[in-house]
Amino acid sequence: MEKILWQHIQTVKKTSPLVHNITNYVVMNNTANALLAAGASPIMSHAQEEVGDMVGICQALVINIGTLDPYWVRSMILAVNKANELSKPWVLDPVGAGATDYRNRTLSDLLALRPTVIRGNASEIMALAKANVSHTKGVDSTAESNEAIDAAISLNKEYGSVVCVSGAIDIVVDNDQTLYLRNGSPLMTKVTGLGCSATSIIGAFIGVVSNKSEAVAAAMSLLAISGELGSKQSSGPGTLQVELLDKLHNITETEFMNTIRISRN
Amino acid sequence: MEKILWQHIQTVKKTSPLVHNITNYVVMNNTANALLAAGASPIMSHAQEEVGDMVGICQALVINIGTLDPYWVRSMILAVNKANELSKPWVLDPVGAGATDYRNRTLSDLLALRPTVIRGNASEIMALAKANVSHTKGVDSTAESNEAIDAAISLNKEYGSVVCVSGAIDIVVDNDQTLYLRNGSPLMTKVTGLGCSATSIIGAFIGVVSNKSEAVAAAMSLLAISGELGSKQSSGPGTLQVELLDKLHNITETEFMNTIRISRN
Amino acid sequence: MEKILWQHIQTVKKTSPLVHNITNYVVMNNTANALLAAGASPIMSHAQEEVGDMVGICQALVINIGTLDPYWVRSMILAVNKANELSKPWVLDPVGAGATDYRNRTLSDLLALRPTVIRGNASEIMALAKANVSHTKGVDSTAESNEAIDAAISLNKEYGSVVCVSGAIDIVVDNDQTLYLRNGSPLMTKVTGLGCSATSIIGAFIGVVSNKSEAVAAAMSLLAISGELGSKQSSGPGTLQVELLDKLHNITETEFMNTIRISRN
Repeated sequence: MEKILWQHIQTVKKTSPLVHNITNYVVMNNTANALLAAGASPIMSHAQEEVGDMVGICQALVINIGTLDPYWVRSMILAVNKANELSKPWVLDPVGAGATDYRNRTLSDLLALRPTVIRGNASEIMALAKANVSHTKGVDSTAESNEAIDAAISLNKEYGSVVCVSGAIDIVVDNDQTLYLRNGSPLMTKVTGLGCSATSIIGAFIGVVSNKSEAVAAAMSLLAISGELGSKQSSGPGTLQVELLDKLHNITETEFMNTIRISRN
Repeated sequence: MEKILWQHIQTVKKTSPLVHNITNYVVMNNTANALLAAGASPIMSHAQEEVGDMVGICQALVINIGTLDPYWVRSMILAVNKANELSKPWVLDPVGAGATDYRNRTLSDLLALRPTVIRGNASEIMALAKANVSHTKGVDSTAESNEAIDAAISLNKEYGSVVCVSGAIDIVVDNDQTLYLRNGSPLMTKVTGLGCSATSIIGAFIGVVSNKSEAVAAAMSLLAISGELGSKQSSGPGTLQVELLDKLHNITETEFMNTIRISRN
Repeated sequence: MEKILWQHIQTVKKTSPLVHNITNYVVMNNTANALLAAGASPIMSHAQEEVGDMVGICQALVINIGTLDPYWVRSMILAVNKANELSKPWVLDPVGAGATDYRNRTLSDLLALRPTVIRGNASEIMALAKANVSHTKGVDSTAESNEAIDAAISLNKEYGSVVCVSGAIDIVVDNDQTLYLRNGSPLMTKVTGLGCSATSIIGAFIGVVSNKSEAVAAAMSLLAISGELGSKQSSGPGTLQVELLDKLHNITETEFMNTIRISRN
């Protein structure tokens, strides 16, 4: 398994998939940098005049509702419909699910279009599955990842999406298989947008890897291990952001294989 | 006084207030990182469908007009009205006050809603108070902080807002008290958005500290001291941005107490 | 020539030109930081209520279509018309030219307003000149700079713009003169928005240097040399972004003169 994930990481670096992001304002810059460091090519575009065309030239689509508004939501729907029409994979990041009715209604519309992958923290995944009605505390995770597994399984069954619950342990749910990835660093929660970076990197991997749960596991392990190794050279969240990008770019097979802690159930 | 400010810094770290930001595109990422590093939780949201709900779940609201346009201004007004209705504190950052009539008109509307705190550089505070009709040179400070004290006092009297004039010396005006904070580094003027970060950190502090002028002084001293200590390990504005975030996260009581230079008049 | 370019760099630092940017969401933060580090003052503003006023107080205007949409395009046209009316220089960054019909139509409208300078990668410049109908691969360069010289010459002849084709070799075309700048580092392609930063720095230089091709060559050499020197102290794209900003701020005449490799034809 670990070896296959490393091969997928190399596939992304070699093929440099073009990833179309309709994402939030806060993270556009570090998301683009994370995609470049991982070897992919980012596109950010939201105009209704061109989102369909952009989907047409990209390998995958990333939808992140972090700073949604009506114009951007219409663009997201247009882009997703085009991706579905062209059978291109897309990943949904339900930022702040449960925080407002507007987010919930928007997410309901997007879920109905059956994302290839959904990635969120435990609060978001539970809100998405209505398995839990507690309020999301902003965009941070307030529930432990493992409490959200039932929610992930129900989303997977209902929409066919591979579901990734990220947190101290990252969990990937698809059909009857659940993967547990135990990498990362607590300091990563002090850098804004690493969850959003994870989602975009997933976009890169599902664009070129046919096995979607492997693609998600490869993307999440690349980011978590880069953060874990980067945090050892960091004195705080500022340096971590820098070191993480370096490691996404420079990580060696030996580093990856010696650090990854993954199991399945 | 210094000891009380440190306690407020600890209060923010312990309670992790949720801060709703309607701010400008340029600084969203580093503002979010500054809030996380200081121990708060950032939310960025501007859709009219949800800004009221977001205010409802947050401890404080930050309004920054840096890249204003009519949609965003309406969202700001909606959010401020909700904050006032719920008696939640809010802080106004009048970026570029005086540069255009549109900014001045917008700021006039926002001032009428009586911000809990106003933070700007000397040019902006003077433009806001109409104490000075010279043109703002962009978003940098062209007038010395101390020249703006009269403007700050007049704003404080008219709107009841605590007014912070940031610059080489940060000044906090409230009622008959004026605080002078002599920390920071000239290199901080070469990093974009540190003023905006200051405003957002003020948002975090007024969300959980009842004495608003102490809250502002604590926020400003945390940022200025983090910048001052960070600049000693920096070879330019790139490293300063990184070191400042690390220090916001890691600063110790000894570092803080040994560095702070605050006086009142 | 090299000495003159260094003098122009000093002119920017001494005069600190105010540069109005209507640019894309992805790069606003690092563009603003690059302008500050180079000694200029950034303004970012897009509201139709004020873009004309902003042009009025700035020395130059930067138009970058990276995340264009109809509202922003109208703002761009308004701002450019004002710049032309006031005889202020402006630079066009045709991000993603050729990728979609919408971008091509928008660029056609902007070209008709005769930019003072155009800066793009080889793919973009060729798409702009319709010299090549291959699809742009996102915002990265897929064609070698020197293949785009014919396209640059044709744009220069048709619109009178100084044209800069950036890439492994940066090329500056104006009238019968072509400059070749051989600085930089391959790692710069892994940091998002350095092309956009180049364009904004060009904005600063054309704002205060009357010879526009010298202004472009000075801006491009400053950025490329800062990246080249910065990359020597970098272990990846994360550190490069930081080191590059430091070097833009700190570069000495000796470093500049010992590193620059420029020739004309």
